[in-house]
Amino acid sequence: MKPSGIITLTTDFGLSDPYVAMMKGVILSINPAARIVDVTHQVGTGSIAQAALLIHETFPYFPKGTVHLAVVDPGVGSHRRLIALTAAAHFFVGPDNGLFWPVLQEFEGAKAVQLSQSRYFLPSITQTFHGREIFAPVAAHLSLGLSLESLGPTVHDLAKVALPQPYAKGGVLCGQIIRVDSFGNLVT
Amino acid sequence: MKPSGIITLTTDFGLSDPYVAMMKGVILSINPAARIVDVTHQVGTGSIAQAALLIHETFPYFPKGTVHLAVVDPGVGSHRRLIALTAAAHFFVGPDNGLFWPVLQEFEGAKAVQLSQSRYFLPSITQTFHGREIFAPVAAHLSLGLSLESLGPTVHDLAKVALPQPYAKGGVLCGQIIRVDSFGNLVT
Amino acid sequence: MKPSGIITLTTDFGLSDPYVAMMKGVILSINPAARIVDVTHQVGTGSIAQAALLIHETFPYFPKGTVHLAVVDPGVGSHRRLIALTAAAHFFVGPDNGLFWPVLQEFEGAKAVQLSQSRYFLPSITQTFHGREIFAPVAAHLSLGLSLESLGPTVHDLAKVALPQPYAKGGVLCGQIIRVDSFGNLVT
Repeated sequence: MKPSGIITLTTDFGLSDPYVAMMKGVILSINPAARIVDVTHQVGTGSIAQAALLIHETFPYFPKGTVHLAVVDPGVGSHRRLIALTAAAHFFVGPDNGLFWPVLQEFEGAKAVQLSQSRYFLPSITQTFHGREIFAPVAAHLSLGLSLESLGPTVHDLAKVALPQPYAKGGVLCGQIIRVDSFGNLVT
Repeated sequence: MKPSGIITLTTDFGLSDPYVAMMKGVILSINPAARIVDVTHQVGTGSIAQAALLIHETFPYFPKGTVHLAVVDPGVGSHRRLIALTAAAHFFVGPDNGLFWPVLQEFEGAKAVQLSQSRYFLPSITQTFHGREIFAPVAAHLSLGLSLESLGPTVHDLAKVALPQPYAKGGVLCGQIIRVDSFGNLVT
Repeated sequence: MKPSGIITLTTDFGLSDPYVAMMKGVILSINPAARIVDVTHQVGTGSIAQAALLIHETFPYFPKGTVHLAVVDPGVGSHRRLIALTAAAHFFVGPDNGLFWPVLQEFEGAKAVQLSQSRYFLPSITQTFHGREIFAPVAAHLSLGLSLESLGPTVHDLAKVALPQPYAKGGVLCGQIIRVDSFGNLVT
């Protein structure tokens, strides 16, 4: 798959701290021509389901070959896997905690790998900021055309996330409000 | 007019929702080399006058040939027109609700067209997000050098917006505070 | 030093006003190929020490030759100097009020100049927005390869800023919390 050179970022880091800028610096150090687009950094802290739906809703508006980097990672430092995958002709990079589950549910034929090749990471790895030290450099390498297979072994049993599902109750279709946007629209 | 390749965005969408990113994805799908600059996405919801003054104040700092895309659009889905115009050697794209009135008042010789050529829109049009489906692709095409005339027929009677005006009262010049900036400066 | 073409921005301007966008417009008018990265615009108003630590923490993640523009400037309009400097193979531009002191403390061999060559400023200078009229154009010129020496005479006695220091008290190491990040991590 030909990369578009675009990398999108979805995190729960907020905009006051320098964490997003550090990730961008790492990306531009590896791919100086990358075009980086913020989806949002105001996902609710640790809200995997919210981020998963945002990513699923947003990625189709970008060109094929775009890398979607997502870091909503309440399990950072624990033993969840770090993954990269292709689905619907896009790349996705982040922790294996369900962030990409809605994309995987809709699009068949996804391929995922576990990030194990440290030559594509920053030299110094902390236990608290895999976004900067692993996900950002891996996304930058994918945006330059590195193959998914170079990053590590194939994985199959990706994590799921519980999403609110609509259901019928006494003949009435019920849904859960998952997001109230800034205009007061309710997204179910 | 030669495009600068730069597109500015002014909206009341906020930064938590993915709407701004969707517009950027649409723009980059059409013009992968576009450089996109956020003016602000924190205009008060539906505050046309506030956005109109921000645009008027900000656009001259950009190179000639820049496309200024503005979506503060409380009338979305109703029958207001969608327009693109040139004034002062810049392009402006948005709803015809007064957003560009201060620019038009200051600079003579503006030309405006009504956006009617759906070949420059996204294929699928909703009634609620013209920013993504019409304004963003039109701005991207203008940034690539498409002529204004290609977008639709000329229009003349553009919408105005009521702006707070200074007035003399008993020998005292009175103005209305239209913005308190983050330093506590009052803009009248 | 070869410029990277990247300019980072750190300010206390917030995201509601158009000031950041004006600076970006000025930069892109001078260097249309500049890639601009926001570190944050949500430094506490006038909090020089906070910004100084953010810059020191963030700049090493960017490529050498990057220009780091910082405007946290409670003394704007007074007689503090405006400076540009090189340290650790990066450029820094801003008011001489201590913003770059932590960088200067860590990296020896820094060279600094006072910005006195108005040919590299915007033609019209106000007393309230040196970020737009002096720092942004100077940063853009540096990103194009202009030498530091071209900007003005060398200066040596740069301003310091008081940073909270750890200290031992009755055998206990004490520090001051200088930042609570959005995850509740305390940075001392």
